[in-house]
Amino acid sequence: MTSRLTAVYRVRARPGEIEARAAAIAVEQSVEMPLSAIRDASILSEIVGEVTAIDERGDGAFDVSIDLAAATVGADAGQLVNMLFGNTSLHDDVMLSSVAFPREMLSAFGGPSHGLSGLRARVDAKGRAMTCSALKPQGLGADDLGKLAFELAMGGLDFIKDDHGLANQTYSPFADRMRACTAAVRRASDRTHHPTRYAPSLSGSYIDMQRQLDLAREEGLDAALIAPMIAGPSNFHALRRNNPDFAFLAHPTMTGARVSPILFAQLFRLFGADASIFPNYGGRFGYSLSTCKAIAAGLLGSFSGLAPSVPAPAGGMSLDRTPELLDCYGEDVMLLIGGALLSAPREGLAAETARFVGAVARHCYL
Amino acid sequence: MTSRLTAVYRVRARPGEIEARAAAIAVEQSVEMPLSAIRDASILSEIVGEVTAIDERGDGAFDVSIDLAAATVGADAGQLVNMLFGNTSLHDDVMLSSVAFPREMLSAFGGPSHGLSGLRARVDAKGRAMTCSALKPQGLGADDLGKLAFELAMGGLDFIKDDHGLANQTYSPFADRMRACTAAVRRASDRTHHPTRYAPSLSGSYIDMQRQLDLAREEGLDAALIAPMIAGPSNFHALRRNNPDFAFLAHPTMTGARVSPILFAQLFRLFGADASIFPNYGGRFGYSLSTCKAIAAGLLGSFSGLAPSVPAPAGGMSLDRTPELLDCYGEDVMLLIGGALLSAPREGLAAETARFVGAVARHCYL
Repeated sequence: MTSRLTAVYRVRARPGEIEARAAAIAVEQSVEMPLSAIRDASILSEIVGEVTAIDERGDGAFDVSIDLAAATVGADAGQLVNMLFGNTSLHDDVMLSSVAFPREMLSAFGGPSHGLSGLRARVDAKGRAMTCSALKPQGLGADDLGKLAFELAMGGLDFIKDDHGLANQTYSPFADRMRACTAAVRRASDRTHHPTRYAPSLSGSYIDMQRQLDLAREEGLDAALIAPMIAGPSNFHALRRNNPDFAFLAHPTMTGARVSPILFAQLFRLFGADASIFPNYGGRFGYSLSTCKAIAAGLLGSFSGLAPSVPAPAGGMSLDRTPELLDCYGEDVMLLIGGALLSAPREGLAAETARFVGAVARHCYL
Repeated sequence: MTSRLTAVYRVRARPGEIEARAAAIAVEQSVEMPLSAIRDASILSEIVGEVTAIDERGDGAFDVSIDLAAATVGADAGQLVNMLFGNTSLHDDVMLSSVAFPREMLSAFGGPSHGLSGLRARVDAKGRAMTCSALKPQGLGADDLGKLAFELAMGGLDFIKDDHGLANQTYSPFADRMRACTAAVRRASDRTHHPTRYAPSLSGSYIDMQRQLDLAREEGLDAALIAPMIAGPSNFHALRRNNPDFAFLAHPTMTGARVSPILFAQLFRLFGADASIFPNYGGRFGYSLSTCKAIAAGLLGSFSGLAPSVPAPAGGMSLDRTPELLDCYGEDVMLLIGGALLSAPREGLAAETARFVGAVARHCYL
């Protein structure tokens, strides 16, 4: 028997139909053809997906557990997503909730190169949460983004990332923006003596993104923002593998298919996200407190020896929520406040940022 | 005023809330920060998304039209998807329905290299629909897949593609499989004198996929299957641009977010799909006849001079539906029948395939 992974799908169906639906998903996500047409016994026994459990969850929902052969995936991140959910993503009434991975698949993907302890070490953050903000709005030129980066860095942040909307636009090409912000953050760091890290946003094809990493490396950077579901999971995984000196912050844009956000964060950890950004509860997205706690637990918890990925809740956060969020997440978190800091007048931005940094530094964890 | 694209979102909201929701989406998909914190007048006037219409559709649904600046996208396919729907994909109650593109963006992306007329020319298909089948199940080794390919090609098909689940698995590595199937199809073509084309499935990172295309080119192939939403849109687009001798068949796996399938097919055409596979009505996916007709119309219709992409309805099709499907789609279509052909006994597979090919050849279009 080959090694298996177990996927759990939340399916809406009438009780009399759930067994047929479950069997259809198992076929769709494996051999994708009538079983009667398969003559090879080993394919029927080892490759065809197998329904191992159907649990009624009430209100017409069922949790369907399906075992899939790990051999159909290998260590290709895109193929993992394809096998887990590809064609089934086209069905309105199915959500992929969770996956149990065989140990050898976890080590084959490998997880983050640096993870929680690596990021902590880079920014001298011991026994406290880390802080982050975002450079925006898009439309600003490289010099203006550099000025913002300078003020944010003067406030003593740990990480400053590009907004995920910053790509390689003519009004702010990657190279210009990255160099302007790198220089600005370095100038501020020389004054604050805090090793603030700047993470530019990667965009385009794999070739474009590798070139952007090479340019960033030339400037002395060692962190970048990437959107795995725009880049393609295999490309993110390959970039992580081929650039082990870099830390990757993963952005959740385009993860809003019917895949649980808890699983998505875990997949990002598996593929190599050193930190994973997700929409915080009580912000402008509808994630609940319990979903956010589960995302954080999935990023930090035991995962067959893979390094923890830092939970980075974000999205409409405000400075006055800092104590509440740290009580909720504890010290193993990177708080990301973007727009609320940038709403401060330019001449007060460094001071407002310092208040955020101070609130994090002074927090007494429960 | 910079050039704009107009995205239409189908939003579920209470009537009293729709204006605020619409405004929030416009901000989310552009500057992603409070407008009060933006000091640059040109960003407020040119970069911030603008709600241009809100149309009530009944049942608590509204069509919200939002203009976005084309300059935020450039000619990056991933960034286009990111700007159109990235963060908004995380909201349960919003679907991206359609997009009106500025003409210069269409020509910048460029569309298919070959399209309908190019594919027709490759397989000598004049005044008739084209035929296609798929090699599966995964789990078969290269030699067995080659044998299937031989029988299918002996039946006189125009295109034989790998199942989208065939990646680079140890039981059937890409190079072995591609060479076995290429040789088999060539051997059959020498007998049938029909120029059947084999399209292997690309997988992995951009680097992997480019290497696979190079291997395929060495064997004389000129077509490949790709899943744009697994590969990442920018990678698909770059592969198309860098391999203009190849025709690309796009597979819809992982397009099941809340983006209209009609729009997804159109995006695939924009990025360069010479043919676009989609789940046919009456198959095992829930697409309606009118959705499928709209997908075909979007692939074939006028699109600022871009070559038409061949509609390739698929998914649980059967041979006896051939006349109905040709009456429905007309001659500008590629009918894809997979499992139903493969359900024929191996010794009867070529004959069953020939029946499909014959039914398509003999059809009198309405």
